[in-house]
Amino acid sequence: MLIVMRKDASQQQIDAVMQAVKFRGCKARPIPGGDRVSIAVLFNQGAVNESWFEDMPGVKQTIAVTRPYKLVGRETKPQDTVIQVGPVSIGGGRLVIIAGPCAIESETQAMTIAECVKRSGGDMFRGGAFKPRTSPYSFQGMGEEGLKILAKVRETFGLPIVTEVTDLACFDMVEDYADVVQIGTRNMQNFSLLRRAGESRKPVFLKRGMSATVEEWLMAAEYILSEGNPNVVLCERGVRTFVRHSRNTLDLSAVPVVQRESHLPVMVDPSHAAGYRDQVIPLARAAAAVNAHGLMIEVHNEPDKATSDGAQSLYPNQFEILCRQVRAIEGILKE
Amino acid sequence: MLIVMRKDASQQQIDAVMQAVKFRGCKARPIPGGDRVSIAVLFNQGAVNESWFEDMPGVKQTIAVTRPYKLVGRETKPQDTVIQVGPVSIGGGRLVIIAGPCAIESETQAMTIAECVKRSGGDMFRGGAFKPRTSPYSFQGMGEEGLKILAKVRETFGLPIVTEVTDLACFDMVEDYADVVQIGTRNMQNFSLLRRAGESRKPVFLKRGMSATVEEWLMAAEYILSEGNPNVVLCERGVRTFVRHSRNTLDLSAVPVVQRESHLPVMVDPSHAAGYRDQVIPLARAAAAVNAHGLMIEVHNEPDKATSDGAQSLYPNQFEILCRQVRAIEGILKE
Amino acid sequence: MLIVMRKDASQQQIDAVMQAVKFRGCKARPIPGGDRVSIAVLFNQGAVNESWFEDMPGVKQTIAVTRPYKLVGRETKPQDTVIQVGPVSIGGGRLVIIAGPCAIESETQAMTIAECVKRSGGDMFRGGAFKPRTSPYSFQGMGEEGLKILAKVRETFGLPIVTEVTDLACFDMVEDYADVVQIGTRNMQNFSLLRRAGESRKPVFLKRGMSATVEEWLMAAEYILSEGNPNVVLCERGVRTFVRHSRNTLDLSAVPVVQRESHLPVMVDPSHAAGYRDQVIPLARAAAAVNAHGLMIEVHNEPDKATSDGAQSLYPNQFEILCRQVRAIEGILKE
Amino acid sequence: MLIVMRKDASQQQIDAVMQAVKFRGCKARPIPGGDRVSIAVLFNQGAVNESWFEDMPGVKQTIAVTRPYKLVGRETKPQDTVIQVGPVSIGGGRLVIIAGPCAIESETQAMTIAECVKRSGGDMFRGGAFKPRTSPYSFQGMGEEGLKILAKVRETFGLPIVTEVTDLACFDMVEDYADVVQIGTRNMQNFSLLRRAGESRKPVFLKRGMSATVEEWLMAAEYILSEGNPNVVLCERGVRTFVRHSRNTLDLSAVPVVQRESHLPVMVDPSHAAGYRDQVIPLARAAAAVNAHGLMIEVHNEPDKATSDGAQSLYPNQFEILCRQVRAIEGILKE
Repeated sequence: MLIVMRKDASQQQIDAVMQAVKFRGCKARPIPGGDRVSIAVLFNQGAVNESWFEDMPGVKQTIAVTRPYKLVGRETKPQDTVIQVGPVSIGGGRLVIIAGPCAIESETQAMTIAECVKRSGGDMFRGGAFKPRTSPYSFQGMGEEGLKILAKVRETFGLPIVTEVTDLACFDMVEDYADVVQIGTRNMQNFSLLRRAGESRKPVFLKRGMSATVEEWLMAAEYILSEGNPNVVLCERGVRTFVRHSRNTLDLSAVPVVQRESHLPVMVDPSHAAGYRDQVIPLARAAAAVNAHGLMIEVHNEPDKATSDGAQSLYPNQFEILCRQVRAIEGILKE
Repeated sequence: MLIVMRKDASQQQIDAVMQAVKFRGCKARPIPGGDRVSIAVLFNQGAVNESWFEDMPGVKQTIAVTRPYKLVGRETKPQDTVIQVGPVSIGGGRLVIIAGPCAIESETQAMTIAECVKRSGGDMFRGGAFKPRTSPYSFQGMGEEGLKILAKVRETFGLPIVTEVTDLACFDMVEDYADVVQIGTRNMQNFSLLRRAGESRKPVFLKRGMSATVEEWLMAAEYILSEGNPNVVLCERGVRTFVRHSRNTLDLSAVPVVQRESHLPVMVDPSHAAGYRDQVIPLARAAAAVNAHGLMIEVHNEPDKATSDGAQSLYPNQFEILCRQVRAIEGILKE
Repeated sequence: MLIVMRKDASQQQIDAVMQAVKFRGCKARPIPGGDRVSIAVLFNQGAVNESWFEDMPGVKQTIAVTRPYKLVGRETKPQDTVIQVGPVSIGGGRLVIIAGPCAIESETQAMTIAECVKRSGGDMFRGGAFKPRTSPYSFQGMGEEGLKILAKVRETFGLPIVTEVTDLACFDMVEDYADVVQIGTRNMQNFSLLRRAGESRKPVFLKRGMSATVEEWLMAAEYILSEGNPNVVLCERGVRTFVRHSRNTLDLSAVPVVQRESHLPVMVDPSHAAGYRDQVIPLARAAAAVNAHGLMIEVHNEPDKATSDGAQSLYPNQFEILCRQVRAIEGILKE
Repeated sequence: MLIVMRKDASQQQIDAVMQAVKFRGCKARPIPGGDRVSIAVLFNQGAVNESWFEDMPGVKQTIAVTRPYKLVGRETKPQDTVIQVGPVSIGGGRLVIIAGPCAIESETQAMTIAECVKRSGGDMFRGGAFKPRTSPYSFQGMGEEGLKILAKVRETFGLPIVTEVTDLACFDMVEDYADVVQIGTRNMQNFSLLRRAGESRKPVFLKRGMSATVEEWLMAAEYILSEGNPNVVLCERGVRTFVRHSRNTLDLSAVPVVQRESHLPVMVDPSHAAGYRDQVIPLARAAAAVNAHGLMIEVHNEPDKATSDGAQSLYPNQFEILCRQVRAIEGILKE
């Protein structure tokens, strides 16, 4: 349930309503808006009675929220969430391009690619130090050494860093180094990890599960927001279908659907959707064309030698072309 | 197998090779290229021996074709197929916009929508006179009366007409009225219909089946080409997946994949993929951004009163916006 | 809408109601039940008013039918449909085993396999004379010659014949030879073919489309019933999913769902679902265990030489084991 | 790579080979078989040279393992793995029935259901104390209190306990109480959890991911085995498809495929596949008919009041029928 306060409600009135919510065994979370405050009533296991609150001083109305998600929903917060990461605004109108290798392999590799990302107009740098791998025998990432390289990339090029956290054990460490903490596809419903991310002071980049509905995906974000972290970026990365000419099928309809249902920014990862290099540029343009808030792209200076996902990594010159075309499409949509 | 003739091969030499192919129990189909002729060897049920032909006068080389498709493959014919329909070139560089209602309902309806299509910059007009419907109790189309209305649209607005043929019984009639004959999703593997389309003098618009692989789709086109009709336009319209926020999931990767594998033009129908009006414009822009050769869009002057597919039909003013945005993206990709 | 007549309603009263339905622009189809007649009101494009009929003499009640299907629904006809094909009852309690090769290749092949089918306890013989093939260059079946071989099998072994009809052009011929006319997966929504099947005097074996919902499948059957042929056998044969270890994924839930929704018998084809021989026997047992009304199995005396679907055809001795195990499971469920 | 030792190889020779493997930077894991030992060479990131080992004393042959899985593969260990859990043998020939409620809600609920499970012939008891829930606002389980109730069930009825572990934080506690630790669908690729399970002394019940291929599933088991725990039970529970008449589509082909590829036992959970009570019994019979090593079934004394998954929970008397029918099918397959 959502309790909408009057514009002229005093802080005292707001506090009183929040006390009343707690008294009923629920959790109250204030949602500051442009001109008024609303209070989300969470964890109501049974029915919540609107009459409990609707006559309290300062209350304008109470709204039964029918969608299973509350905090992530646009009904709760109509304004777009804009997340500031250093110099970059995600959701703030400009398309954000995050790029880098799948995995950090060495300082030379990372710096070479970061230089290309910077030069081509990328906004942030990505690279995995902890890698979730299907096989226990595959390269599992450089760990903290990789994180240190990422920190050096940030220092040298001024690019904020996005890197993946794979479990609770490495969360503190990743959080220390990263500007944005990524939760990958396979962990979209790792609820402990989501709760921990909800306690983080860093924004969270939440990829859609391989066969998750949009509702399940938003509910995963709800876990993070319900713990107090309002800064979640959603990322569509393709879903698993019968199709075999691409690694996954990019579900671009999800972008307008998420933008209608939620105030959170939503980006697109065409690299993992495609799985093949020559589909990445067209799909990146398509993502810009549906008005996604940003792109996450895999780039590698030597894709053939990459420890993982080489076949879908762009060559530096391809990334440059991608940026130019994508910015042009962005320009059109702003006219 | 493909027999590539020398540039200076005489017609007599070409004829002799074709005779030799027939003598071996196969069908020979000459494929004129820019500067030389190739001969496709079809219907070879067992192994075809390259040595049978490779030493004949005028033969440059013989190529074993490993893909199951032959005539539709780029290996067989590297140059893009360009199909001329009245004033419109499909596959010729300019994005072709086909638009109109799902079903023709009346002359007034058709003329009103056609006027909008023309004014907004659409290239061709679509509208169903014979409708394949899931229920035997749903409106099945106006039949010949609908075709006559389509002819009047063409006469009045100069827009070539695309309309669907649903079975062998109505093929002759549809072929008489239409500029392009459409074969729908449910008929993609109606092999008798494909063969009949292969004997037609009209270009064929072949939609992808609801759960067809790209290979099956190209093989369906192969049926048409193998009967002698080289003018096939492919159309991606979304595939069936677990996703429920859209009617189908638009598989935009299919566009670059088809363009690499085949010389045939490939268009996109975002209306049937989306199923909901507010996804159609973003997906149409995305289709332009992946460099599809054209779009097929449902427009209706009164979507709420449409006899079918109203929820996915654009209002006239939305179609106008779509055309403007799509043309702008097209412009960028040509720079 | 369904008009249920009183048990003691006279024929005159029934006729009067049917006249009244026609007068309202609808089609009336009487459905004889065990102890009373009901009248289905079809093709009602607009709203049908219950008050038009509910006070007529002999009428017990009128029921608004909310499911999109009418004639195939259990609400319309609660009793199971039992279809008699020569000595075999489909839907009559005993599990019916239909077996034979994918395609008829020669008289020797057909007779050898039929002898095995008969000896192992198979009830009917299947074999394709007209084959829908993905490639125009694949073997398309023996045509009428194949049908004549099928007739000889029937004559020799007393096994009723099921064979596929691929288009309107071959329907009359197939209908003449076959005891049951099969409509394949790719033709499940070939609505002209369904209508023609609805005019046939022969029972129709209707396979589920590759990605059809149960509702679409039942609506396809509705096409046949709405033209007057009440004898439709449904056949689940696997649906297309992301899974790659089998050709399709057998959807056994569909069997109890169809049996709840419809009175038509429903069989299972594990051969096309599996695509690999060693999965066929377990899936056949599973189909018997969910209480399907029958099985359709591919058997071949020399699978390695089969012109199509060899990899999924059982060896004769495997078929014998299958029959024994399946009959044992059938026995348990009857106890 | 797999190093197969001679039957008469001494322990000294085995140790020497294992030393040699470590020397090459790999991990050696001995796999005792019926009459000889094999040594799996793990974590080989580059190529492993067979010549390094094939001439060492006691070595019979070296086998390049092409499947991505090693320890779980039948090539590595041809004999079926049999897991002893108290009085119950999983994979030992007798079909194992695990049953109980989705979540433990109270002692009364658990004891009532356990009594029914025991009486009907169930072998083990299931019930969640930690529940992974799509919504942060849903009931998340009773935690340790629930585990204590489970321990009481075991004590009272002699039924071994299977219960789910949802993250690293609760692993130790769950491991203390449970006889078998379950890893759920959403955690199938939670690699940290898999590694922790690999260090456990308790058998692990590993459910297939919602859209996992059999290969990915076996690789998840490989994570567990590679850490030293050989006791993994796989469980098919349906995959996500376009189908809507059931919650998931039960992929019964996976059972024979897993049994061919791996030596690990594989069970089936028809409750989560179906999602609807009236499909559970037929699917359970089908699972027995494909020769699964066991079943996991949801039973509840008051399904309508269940805190989760009530719609798919059987009534006690339905569970009794299920057991009787499933045992009868099991009997047939043993004849």
